[in-house]
Amino acid sequence: MRERQNGSGRRPADRTTVIVLGGDGYCGWPTALHLSDAGYEVVVLDNLARRGWDVELGTESLTPICTLDERVAAWAELTGRTIELELGDLLDADFLDDVIARHAPGAVVHFAEQRSAPYSMIDREHAVFTQHNNVIGTLNLLFALAEHAPECHLVKLGTMGEYGTPNIDIEEGFIEIHHNGRSDRLPFPKQAGSFYHLTKVHDSHNIAFACRVWGLRSTDLNQGVVYGAVTPQTELDERLANRFDYDEVFGTALNRFCVQAAIGHPLTVYGRGGQTRGFLDIRDTVRCVELAIANPPEPGEYRVFNQFTEQFRVGELADMVAEAAGKLGLDARVATVENPRVELEEHYYNARHSRLLELGLVPHALSETLLDSLVRIAVRYRDRVIPDVIAPRVEWRRRRAAPALRV
Amino acid sequence: MRERQNGSGRRPADRTTVIVLGGDGYCGWPTALHLSDAGYEVVVLDNLARRGWDVELGTESLTPICTLDERVAAWAELTGRTIELELGDLLDADFLDDVIARHAPGAVVHFAEQRSAPYSMIDREHAVFTQHNNVIGTLNLLFALAEHAPECHLVKLGTMGEYGTPNIDIEEGFIEIHHNGRSDRLPFPKQAGSFYHLTKVHDSHNIAFACRVWGLRSTDLNQGVVYGAVTPQTELDERLANRFDYDEVFGTALNRFCVQAAIGHPLTVYGRGGQTRGFLDIRDTVRCVELAIANPPEPGEYRVFNQFTEQFRVGELADMVAEAAGKLGLDARVATVENPRVELEEHYYNARHSRLLELGLVPHALSETLLDSLVRIAVRYRDRVIPDVIAPRVEWRRRRAAPALRV
Repeated sequence: MRERQNGSGRRPADRTTVIVLGGDGYCGWPTALHLSDAGYEVVVLDNLARRGWDVELGTESLTPICTLDERVAAWAELTGRTIELELGDLLDADFLDDVIARHAPGAVVHFAEQRSAPYSMIDREHAVFTQHNNVIGTLNLLFALAEHAPECHLVKLGTMGEYGTPNIDIEEGFIEIHHNGRSDRLPFPKQAGSFYHLTKVHDSHNIAFACRVWGLRSTDLNQGVVYGAVTPQTELDERLANRFDYDEVFGTALNRFCVQAAIGHPLTVYGRGGQTRGFLDIRDTVRCVELAIANPPEPGEYRVFNQFTEQFRVGELADMVAEAAGKLGLDARVATVENPRVELEEHYYNARHSRLLELGLVPHALSETLLDSLVRIAVRYRDRVIPDVIAPRVEWRRRRAAPALRV
Repeated sequence: MRERQNGSGRRPADRTTVIVLGGDGYCGWPTALHLSDAGYEVVVLDNLARRGWDVELGTESLTPICTLDERVAAWAELTGRTIELELGDLLDADFLDDVIARHAPGAVVHFAEQRSAPYSMIDREHAVFTQHNNVIGTLNLLFALAEHAPECHLVKLGTMGEYGTPNIDIEEGFIEIHHNGRSDRLPFPKQAGSFYHLTKVHDSHNIAFACRVWGLRSTDLNQGVVYGAVTPQTELDERLANRFDYDEVFGTALNRFCVQAAIGHPLTVYGRGGQTRGFLDIRDTVRCVELAIANPPEPGEYRVFNQFTEQFRVGELADMVAEAAGKLGLDARVATVENPRVELEEHYYNARHSRLLELGLVPHALSETLLDSLVRIAVRYRDRVIPDVIAPRVEWRRRRAAPALRV
């Protein structure tokens, strides 16, 4: 079942240390396991905030997940590989300085941000929290790296949502602009669609600046919408299970559709469903991060990879899930609900995503098999589903109060 | 001496209220007076932070300035016009909500940010303070407007420094990009040169989003480097005097050169002096703000005006000041110092600035007369100059500690 094995589990003397910031989360945890499995010396830094937001919102992972301590203990027991833990917050600059100085990482993978667009749109407090947490946390990280590990490669999770939906092809971070007889390669214009997505835009500008003035090196992974639940490592044992979010705030479209199908709830498409986005399997997320680490940029270089493998219309995804569910004997139908977001529902979308392929990524295309397995996971845990948390309650336009939101 | 008079000083029943955020500062104070003189009901909101930063840095305004209370009392005594004060901080959301709700402003002019690039580059604490203060303060303002004054026109001070120095013509906020056979009008790419300048980029993205999703209306004034000290209103009485900054942290190039000439200090040009920027007279700053208020955008519209009147190379400005000083019998010479910033010192620069002219701005060109008067102001107050605060000590590259910086 595992895609690769790295020998005996003994630790080579020259193993590179990688710190995974936010290593307890949906992408962070499988990335930490994947990198540990690939032979890196992995340190997970997390403040456990993601688990707290579930408590705040009255939801929890569809899949039962162990505590972070139990997770790393199980990983050590099963593989002989140690993942060291650092519990703390990027807003605590002294803590962060100390972690970076002590571990002297070759790379830092930064997932440690509030990553839900709806969460950032709940109200002023949540918008301010998100922008403060993400922007200042990353700023502290840039200073910590400049001071204590200037050669370290910062692998930062950005989002395809930074670009919005322009009427031209989306390039990877930069675009050659010809204007009035002159030309320059400039940052691709950004039109983010939530206070969360805006934090990634702000981070991108701050990181590019730090690379330019301090000679730091960074890869900004503008990731699409991640789907799936398992990687070869998380499947080794139930104690290693990854979280699976299906609520309107943290659940992503495809995973949410699978849960709706499993409990006989209509698959709720926002608006006309013509919103086109880039998607990828979580098994590709972990591989993309590994590829970025293995092929670092030059000192002073800030580069951007668009990290997704396929484009889909959201309505099209719902239809695919409904069909897969039907074959499993579930009565799944697609329903349209009023779009709580402010976004174009029919638009041009064509985004380049070749740089990770050039480095060797072999994508997992969204297949009937995967949809089948995701729906089966949802069915297996359907008794754990809290139906109230699925329907959209966070309203971008602030036209009405969110009636049932427990915050 | 006053450019305009607005009748008896009686308050028409339909006078529009304008709140000037940061109305105690270098641009804010003369803007408040100008708008009051022009017949607006002016409220000044300030937290007096700018005066505190002088204390922190061991410097003070070249010109003696009165307290804010004394200033508005003098203005009332001289003109019969009342400027109401609101002392508080944009980071205090409850205070801000209350101010916006109580005054129901037709326009809010937002100068209330930390506006020094070197200050933001002193160290981590100052970078974090600047980004937090500016970005979260503006975010609180957007929520306060959406909640309590959704029709209000937000006139936001941005900076030409958001654009950096691209190798193409700089447009006013947006650029039509043709790419692979398609085209779109997109935000002009941003390449800011300090953590301060980056906050203005972040603000621009946040404000554009708030206009799009909540239907707010905003004019973003991407201002060039302001020079000069007086407006017709500040000249009415010494108690109305504006601040005049000459220190390396808050002083802008031209004002600093005048003070250097006055005390017989070499005019210090950073690096080769080929840095080209847009400049404007402070008398045009106040007029541009008035023009923006008088010609508001539509609900939902986010527009950008480039607010400067002339482009100069920094070395060229130093030569002009040296020449003007020479005619006053001062021995002024230009000296090159190592550039503490990371910036191109010879580059293409051509920025459009036609939208404010189209609204009726009649620019004050930088003239020998003005340089003469600025040097005379500097000579008049030269006994107040603290020479230690002029030379650059804040280092963009973090290669060395700032030796003499009192922070």
